[in-house]
Amino acid sequence: MQTQTFERMESNVRTYSRSFPVVFSKAQGARLTDENGREYIDFLAGAGTLNYGHNNPELKKALVDYLATDGVVHGLDMWTSAKREYFEALDELILKPRNLDYKIQLPGPTGTNAAEAAIRLARKVKQRHNIVAFTNGFHGITMGALAPTGNRKFRENTGGVPTVGGSFVPYDGYMGDAIDTLDYFEKLLGDKSGGLDLPAAAIVETVQGEGGINVSGLEWLKRLEGICHDNDILLIIDDIQAGCGRTGKFFSFEHAGVVPDMVLNSKSLSGFGLPFSHVLMRPELDQWEPGQYNGTFRGFNLAMITAAAALKQYWSDDTLAKDVQRKGKIVEERFQKLASQLTDAGMPASERGRGLMRGIDVETGDIADKISGKAFEHGLIIETSGQDGEVVKCLCPLTITDEELEKGLSILETAVKEVIGG
Amino acid sequence: MQTQTFERMESNVRTYSRSFPVVFSKAQGARLTDENGREYIDFLAGAGTLNYGHNNPELKKALVDYLATDGVVHGLDMWTSAKREYFEALDELILKPRNLDYKIQLPGPTGTNAAEAAIRLARKVKQRHNIVAFTNGFHGITMGALAPTGNRKFRENTGGVPTVGGSFVPYDGYMGDAIDTLDYFEKLLGDKSGGLDLPAAAIVETVQGEGGINVSGLEWLKRLEGICHDNDILLIIDDIQAGCGRTGKFFSFEHAGVVPDMVLNSKSLSGFGLPFSHVLMRPELDQWEPGQYNGTFRGFNLAMITAAAALKQYWSDDTLAKDVQRKGKIVEERFQKLASQLTDAGMPASERGRGLMRGIDVETGDIADKISGKAFEHGLIIETSGQDGEVVKCLCPLTITDEELEKGLSILETAVKEVIGG
Amino acid sequence: MQTQTFERMESNVRTYSRSFPVVFSKAQGARLTDENGREYIDFLAGAGTLNYGHNNPELKKALVDYLATDGVVHGLDMWTSAKREYFEALDELILKPRNLDYKIQLPGPTGTNAAEAAIRLARKVKQRHNIVAFTNGFHGITMGALAPTGNRKFRENTGGVPTVGGSFVPYDGYMGDAIDTLDYFEKLLGDKSGGLDLPAAAIVETVQGEGGINVSGLEWLKRLEGICHDNDILLIIDDIQAGCGRTGKFFSFEHAGVVPDMVLNSKSLSGFGLPFSHVLMRPELDQWEPGQYNGTFRGFNLAMITAAAALKQYWSDDTLAKDVQRKGKIVEERFQKLASQLTDAGMPASERGRGLMRGIDVETGDIADKISGKAFEHGLIIETSGQDGEVVKCLCPLTITDEELEKGLSILETAVKEVIGG
Amino acid sequence: MQTQTFERMESNVRTYSRSFPVVFSKAQGARLTDENGREYIDFLAGAGTLNYGHNNPELKKALVDYLATDGVVHGLDMWTSAKREYFEALDELILKPRNLDYKIQLPGPTGTNAAEAAIRLARKVKQRHNIVAFTNGFHGITMGALAPTGNRKFRENTGGVPTVGGSFVPYDGYMGDAIDTLDYFEKLLGDKSGGLDLPAAAIVETVQGEGGINVSGLEWLKRLEGICHDNDILLIIDDIQAGCGRTGKFFSFEHAGVVPDMVLNSKSLSGFGLPFSHVLMRPELDQWEPGQYNGTFRGFNLAMITAAAALKQYWSDDTLAKDVQRKGKIVEERFQKLASQLTDAGMPASERGRGLMRGIDVETGDIADKISGKAFEHGLIIETSGQDGEVVKCLCPLTITDEELEKGLSILETAVKEVIGG
Repeated sequence: MQTQTFERMESNVRTYSRSFPVVFSKAQGARLTDENGREYIDFLAGAGTLNYGHNNPELKKALVDYLATDGVVHGLDMWTSAKREYFEALDELILKPRNLDYKIQLPGPTGTNAAEAAIRLARKVKQRHNIVAFTNGFHGITMGALAPTGNRKFRENTGGVPTVGGSFVPYDGYMGDAIDTLDYFEKLLGDKSGGLDLPAAAIVETVQGEGGINVSGLEWLKRLEGICHDNDILLIIDDIQAGCGRTGKFFSFEHAGVVPDMVLNSKSLSGFGLPFSHVLMRPELDQWEPGQYNGTFRGFNLAMITAAAALKQYWSDDTLAKDVQRKGKIVEERFQKLASQLTDAGMPASERGRGLMRGIDVETGDIADKISGKAFEHGLIIETSGQDGEVVKCLCPLTITDEELEKGLSILETAVKEVIGG
Repeated sequence: MQTQTFERMESNVRTYSRSFPVVFSKAQGARLTDENGREYIDFLAGAGTLNYGHNNPELKKALVDYLATDGVVHGLDMWTSAKREYFEALDELILKPRNLDYKIQLPGPTGTNAAEAAIRLARKVKQRHNIVAFTNGFHGITMGALAPTGNRKFRENTGGVPTVGGSFVPYDGYMGDAIDTLDYFEKLLGDKSGGLDLPAAAIVETVQGEGGINVSGLEWLKRLEGICHDNDILLIIDDIQAGCGRTGKFFSFEHAGVVPDMVLNSKSLSGFGLPFSHVLMRPELDQWEPGQYNGTFRGFNLAMITAAAALKQYWSDDTLAKDVQRKGKIVEERFQKLASQLTDAGMPASERGRGLMRGIDVETGDIADKISGKAFEHGLIIETSGQDGEVVKCLCPLTITDEELEKGLSILETAVKEVIGG
Repeated sequence: MQTQTFERMESNVRTYSRSFPVVFSKAQGARLTDENGREYIDFLAGAGTLNYGHNNPELKKALVDYLATDGVVHGLDMWTSAKREYFEALDELILKPRNLDYKIQLPGPTGTNAAEAAIRLARKVKQRHNIVAFTNGFHGITMGALAPTGNRKFRENTGGVPTVGGSFVPYDGYMGDAIDTLDYFEKLLGDKSGGLDLPAAAIVETVQGEGGINVSGLEWLKRLEGICHDNDILLIIDDIQAGCGRTGKFFSFEHAGVVPDMVLNSKSLSGFGLPFSHVLMRPELDQWEPGQYNGTFRGFNLAMITAAAALKQYWSDDTLAKDVQRKGKIVEERFQKLASQLTDAGMPASERGRGLMRGIDVETGDIADKISGKAFEHGLIIETSGQDGEVVKCLCPLTITDEELEKGLSILETAVKEVIGG
Repeated sequence: MQTQTFERMESNVRTYSRSFPVVFSKAQGARLTDENGREYIDFLAGAGTLNYGHNNPELKKALVDYLATDGVVHGLDMWTSAKREYFEALDELILKPRNLDYKIQLPGPTGTNAAEAAIRLARKVKQRHNIVAFTNGFHGITMGALAPTGNRKFRENTGGVPTVGGSFVPYDGYMGDAIDTLDYFEKLLGDKSGGLDLPAAAIVETVQGEGGINVSGLEWLKRLEGICHDNDILLIIDDIQAGCGRTGKFFSFEHAGVVPDMVLNSKSLSGFGLPFSHVLMRPELDQWEPGQYNGTFRGFNLAMITAAAALKQYWSDDTLAKDVQRKGKIVEERFQKLASQLTDAGMPASERGRGLMRGIDVETGDIADKISGKAFEHGLIIETSGQDGEVVKCLCPLTITDEELEKGLSILETAVKEVIGG
């Protein structure tokens, strides 16, 4: 595989090609193939972007058919047949069955664009600058989205321009099991000199992906919703990684029975790996003036075609959702065993997650890297997350076959065994 | 055409559907077709995103062929065959022939992501917070890119969080013909108490698209390059709208013989309307640590496939470039006539532009809106730009046929006649 | 008393004249006299500025003698005999006996100027923007000092310019007795994605004056010092209100055996109510370039004359310190009784404080205002503090006579009785 | 003279003691005396703080008399007899005769505190963040006042926290005689994408002191007033250095017939070198809530005593004002001669100023430093200003005797002669 082109021309900023230094040429379902023809099971899946697998055939068919008719590919935010199809599919298959009444904003096609738009709107509506985020939260790294993003790697490397307008409070479990972190949040909210400016919004992930598969309790989420409501604070759920079925329901907040004021989706929203995002908002919050937020790629019609196809294919009934729950249990059990083995071997580890968003916390980035590295040697692509990269994270396609899942888990078990063996 | 779905579900922020309130279903070359089968000549072309026309057949073929082989669609920033193909095409067809030596960063796939990345890197390299921009410049609206963007519509509506780290100096011609605005910039740079913090970078468009087709002189650009060099300031050319051949050369700065430290491209970079952007930078500026800038859609392989195809199809020789220059002259002459007619009718107007990036400044948004509105009635899509929307702007596909160009210009002439007639 | 002049000409921003709406004409020791000749016991003492009483005779003598010789009054930061006298008195009587080795910066003559200077220096030395403060901390309201100040009243009323570069963590006791808030701080410091940018400094009051007489434990302070040291964070003690003997030692941090990296003093530093402040810093932190921080009134010689006189008069031995401790106990006991009486009457209350910095927390600003109002009717000036004004605060002169102290406490008891009686 | 104490204990930030490395012990009128008994003529006068001279006898008498009666020295912002006396003197002697109707805010006692208060109020009233300042303007260095202050020395050394909410436009004459800089300002104000956010206020010095004795034209000021009025922008005149008679009238803007919305005074306001400042504002702008801006030393009664005495002594008629104008002409003529001599000797120089605020611009800091240094050797204290310290600046007491003025000018002439002679 020729890699000199990359080494010569690509910025040092590249990352994944450091962990997986091969050139990939093909991808199908839960499998990636490199230029030497070697196949890999993919537990990374575009960091949660490929919930329906690589080159999902149904979605690809819809895409190619659309191209064949010379459908509009790029139309800024003009009205197109594709956009109407997406809106209607979203309404019929997702919103109405869940009694959700939202308007849709299409910002730029990435998660960080969606976070920027939602944050700006929340500030505009409430006329307050502060956005409360939670420890280990991740919402993007453009300057607006970075304000409520916890990672020092990005926050402290902006060249002398600190982020403005974000504050952090502890996520569920951050202070140990004995403490409900919302007690602290609530105390700060009621405190006129506690240093927490009354926020326009709280932005939260129900399961933190980049933060290390931290799972918020369903009661905690419900209480958070109540606190926001009581204090006139908008609740924004960033469902960019946990949404689109990842946790076993379309929206991850459904488990908790929460109704956010705004919802962010991206990553698997197009279903095919096409850049796409939307902001859902309660209708009364739609206080934008025409054109007050824009972006060249804010209505990417190909993504809306595949997004609509994905909804029709997978969300007309609960088959996929139940299957995710079933597979999630499989991964949970296998990960628990791995955690036990590691712990027994003197490497304390624990399992956590919801649905097919699962991780093994091995407490150090070093051990996690070793496991990921060994797994790659044996044909499994799996990444680490968490503040120190200490969590081995499974984000396999939701549509992975049982056979592929088994293969991936077996490889992981081999990798762990080798790491334990030293 | 059913539009209630949009009216009910789409955020008020929508804009183009207000000027062109129909539902488009097909697009080919320089033509858009609505659901009633009505055809429109497209002088908007995705605000400069479709330089090679809608559904360009060569590019579409490359895209569909790639999909047929299950090529990798989404791979974060992993190495793929598609990425190598793009890098090599860029190197062979664009960089080497122009004696340019740049490294490539793929940030998020939109222009504002590219601006954020370049600005952050400039600050990091120079350890200075200030980025100098020019009056009427536009570089995106995420909070980082907004700092050097001039539009109050965005700047003043961020909900109580002012942008940080941008300063403005007058663009070429801003103070009238008699004054070289760079005199002022140079004086400020040398002044220890002038209020201009020594900038990390200057960011400039050689022709300002959103700002109203303001064209910088080639000597002015060359002098700007010298000033930046002498003051240890990076020169960033934002070629997002003016690049990819729009002005008659691949990079708009080639006319001036300038070699920027960084270049931003997006919009027509993929050639097919697919979200894509890159930052080019002198190799010694590539001081990123691995992973210090990221984004889920930063390596969109489909876009790289069409981008490579576009380079091969249109930039292997200078045929397209010369054709753009030829058509540019046609538009220039016709626009000059229209400007004269408007002026004679008591509506002072003037023409300006470079290549196929051209506008008629009619001095008020009201008149420009009327012209655009009348044009739409007659089957031409053309937008306005400038601080008050006072410039009717032609960004037709570079590949527009002479017949289509003629048709579009004729419609515009009819529209102008009707507006003059009252 | 003629008050129309004030009502007509003075800004609405005035506050104390709303609680104490008389015109004062004379002041001696712990007594203020209004224009009608009525005398008041002063438990406010310039909000802690008059530790040695109004018009302290020894200090006044030094001041008048200096004026008689035409000593330099204002000399920017030029060297004067008065400055040398102050520096030497500070060194001999305060620093050396406590084994403290500090350099002195004279910023503008107010506490907020000192906070601005210290914060800026900390950022400069550590090349980090973040300053950690504690809930309910108060350090001034100019924009730099406001960043680590908790009060929404100021923070949220800056006209659309949020403060930049401050973060808050919970003060000792903020989360209840069972939780050591430094556990949380320490966890955040070690967390690469917790949202707390690695701080340049932590700024803390050992007893929070404006925040409501919140008293940090001595072990908590000592542990804080250790955490700062271990994490390369500067520890700044804001001793503006708690210093100059208020807690029973010259510096309030002496109780804990802590040695801060920087110390802020102001308020009672001149001893005579003259505007004055200094920043003390470990010598290696003095990385200022000449002139990098300035201010017209940064070397107010009259204040240095009285400051030196105060040190000589009161800090040549421990007489005053011991007397403060003795009187502090008197106030503590009497306040405890008042708190019990209030609690018994259904108004839950508690006493807290250190030395002669003491308060009764009555839990609502309404009750506290009533007590303060009744006290004023009976001839006692006493203010409230805390986030909601819920703490009746005693900051009487340290030099108050036992008779005056008794009188003041008696009036307060009468006031409480009346409030209980309804 | 013992200076080791300073060298050991004082922060490196010290400046004036580097130019004038002696220890001063006495000061009278326009004369300073060092500990060796050497006398210096003082053309610095506390950087404009001692308009009425050191230890002005009338003011000292008022001060000592007040102290003798145990008048209130420090009373936060409580009403005192001293404050009423000051308010009434200001009203009767200054405001009413000039038909000015202002309310008074007493912020912290320094100029930067006044600037912070005025800026915050302007933002609050107009609900806009931007404050427009002018090139080479200086308004203080706390973070809020620094936003509209031009000096890189301070702006670029805030440790990674850029100032927020200030923009700069060119001061009168900045772009040469042929260009009215207000044309540019007006164009930016009317430009929706020029990058200048609509400002809450413009803040300007009529003669820039720190900026290098730059003198704005009276018509320019009047036009600025009109532009502000037409664009709903508050006009804040920072008269901290140019006010209190320095230019030949009490307020420097009287020359232009301008009525600012707010006025800042400090420096010579107390008349005796005591820290003091006020903000004057049109009554309808007084939209402060009680306590929304505070500060321990905001009502320094001793300063109000001397301020009232100064008004009574010097502003009951126009004797002083006329005398300032007369002496200003003397300095002007002598400075013009010096400028000619320097120019003739190959060191291009020019004179400028208004009243007794005058400078010789010698174009390099090096020459200016030499002149100042030689002058000091011969017994004259005179400082430099301007972005590069290139302007030798005369701010002698307004009450200087003709003999002292002559002596100072003679020394300066000697110094210039020596510098020319090499």
